[in-house]
Amino acid sequence: MAQRTHRIVIGVMGPASCDPGTAAAARAIGRGIAERGAVLLTGGRSGVMEAATQGAREGGGLTVGVLPGASPTETPPNPFVDVALFTGLGEARNWVNVCASDAVIAVGGGFGTLSEIALALKARKPVVLLGSWRLEIEGTVPNLPRAETPEEAVATAFALIAPSL
Amino acid sequence: MAQRTHRIVIGVMGPASCDPGTAAAARAIGRGIAERGAVLLTGGRSGVMEAATQGAREGGGLTVGVLPGASPTETPPNPFVDVALFTGLGEARNWVNVCASDAVIAVGGGFGTLSEIALALKARKPVVLLGSWRLEIEGTVPNLPRAETPEEAVATAFALIAPSL
Amino acid sequence: MAQRTHRIVIGVMGPASCDPGTAAAARAIGRGIAERGAVLLTGGRSGVMEAATQGAREGGGLTVGVLPGASPTETPPNPFVDVALFTGLGEARNWVNVCASDAVIAVGGGFGTLSEIALALKARKPVVLLGSWRLEIEGTVPNLPRAETPEEAVATAFALIAPSL
Amino acid sequence: MAQRTHRIVIGVMGPASCDPGTAAAARAIGRGIAERGAVLLTGGRSGVMEAATQGAREGGGLTVGVLPGASPTETPPNPFVDVALFTGLGEARNWVNVCASDAVIAVGGGFGTLSEIALALKARKPVVLLGSWRLEIEGTVPNLPRAETPEEAVATAFALIAPSL
Repeated sequence: MAQRTHRIVIGVMGPASCDPGTAAAARAIGRGIAERGAVLLTGGRSGVMEAATQGAREGGGLTVGVLPGASPTETPPNPFVDVALFTGLGEARNWVNVCASDAVIAVGGGFGTLSEIALALKARKPVVLLGSWRLEIEGTVPNLPRAETPEEAVATAFALIAPSL
Repeated sequence: MAQRTHRIVIGVMGPASCDPGTAAAARAIGRGIAERGAVLLTGGRSGVMEAATQGAREGGGLTVGVLPGASPTETPPNPFVDVALFTGLGEARNWVNVCASDAVIAVGGGFGTLSEIALALKARKPVVLLGSWRLEIEGTVPNLPRAETPEEAVATAFALIAPSL
Repeated sequence: MAQRTHRIVIGVMGPASCDPGTAAAARAIGRGIAERGAVLLTGGRSGVMEAATQGAREGGGLTVGVLPGASPTETPPNPFVDVALFTGLGEARNWVNVCASDAVIAVGGGFGTLSEIALALKARKPVVLLGSWRLEIEGTVPNLPRAETPEEAVATAFALIAPSL
Repeated sequence: MAQRTHRIVIGVMGPASCDPGTAAAARAIGRGIAERGAVLLTGGRSGVMEAATQGAREGGGLTVGVLPGASPTETPPNPFVDVALFTGLGEARNWVNVCASDAVIAVGGGFGTLSEIALALKARKPVVLLGSWRLEIEGTVPNLPRAETPEEAVATAFALIAPSL
């Protein structure tokens, strides 16, 4: 592959509704991503997605929302999204979220978020979890990076993609 | 909605490689689905998908494989698939697997399977687990039906869709 | 590629509403596909799709409908569809229609049909046109097989896929 | 719908290889889109896509490339793409291109471009053609806006979306 010329994109995945503590964490993560110069990608909706997008805006960054609907009437983006990518794909857009991100940070729960964690692992993309799902299969727990703070989540995500850039 | 005229479809999701015990369970599940007159849908590949498809064939049923690649050259279907639906969607086809199934039975692990469990829950589709993922978030475990035997998995899947037919 | 074991699938693409003559042609095409032992794939809805599906049923064949919606509530299949594959992908399911078909027969007009002709050509799939779009670019007309009758459309489609089987 | 807060996105669709005259037109269109303050969206690859993206960069605009592959290894973006959205959807990403654009300008030929014209018409999105496909069905020619110059193409696209903003 030739030298990379496109910008780093970090995806923040999380549910469309969340408690204030989770929203504050998502906002700090969005801000941190922007301050490090990367583009923030989310699902473009409310809750964790909106909080992260608001934070990235506050950090001076560019925000992309990848929406499930085919138009703003079907799925309106939150007011902090700069570029709203309506996909018309429903939840298949979760696969786009993962492919389009250099690393994924999952904040909080929700089944959509769980699908994005799983798809990211399937695509061998770096995933960092903050207060999100714990997984176990037949006594085995996948060794996923878990962060305790927003700062740690952002630092870990960038550290995990660094070698491939 | 008018009276239903299309056939019942049960999706069996599982990894492309598995141990003999898991394969035997998947095969029994495929056979049970066929014997109850439903169409079996899988991802069309090897491992759990192939074993379930083989079982459904043995049970005299119709087998559909929903493949990630755009052609048999990219992703060859297993030899028991009757109708191979090449999607050219990569792992976004997991969303199709879920939408196209009246109920989903997840057998064994794998991250693709985990994404299908999550997408099914997101779509409010019945999901039955056999030897598959255990999930937990902040001390809460989603109350998902777990089967101990292939027979129980099949019976539970049909019981869960029955009310909506 | 190993010897092919899955069934031949012929896609019939056309608009969701059409005049009686076009419907009769689509029905004859569906019947012809079934009588030659192939699976009929359509978009699963009304108009040309329904007529072709009805014909294939009358010919004793298996009918697959690939629907844009995520559920029968969103996009109900026509009553002749055996296997309804809800995709939840909107019009992106047109790409699935093309990838899943060994050859495509386009009957009549409509912009969705035009997209399927274009996607089939992009995927280098055989396409046969019956009373469908004429295309021209800068004085050049792509050399696409056009049929005058349903029988010719079916015969041409099978002839074009034969070499690759 | 609440007041729009996300940026205007204009999609420029065209083939991955083209003659110098077509490239010059695409470049002027990209520049014009950027100078009017909108985001340029393309398929992210070479030919018309690259020329339009280069023009938008020169005009000081933001450029988004929606790629068919799941990674830069599969489908490298051209060097003028700021935000590369790898979709892993193959040509199903053409549906995303259309949904994500407020208006589409088609430059030159190619079957992928034709599919995007068709999908845009299906989605009732404004489409402007410059040196692109001519369509006809049973003696009827869809009344699509055709531009003679890059400036006219850009002006027409903005005029067509203006009422909906």
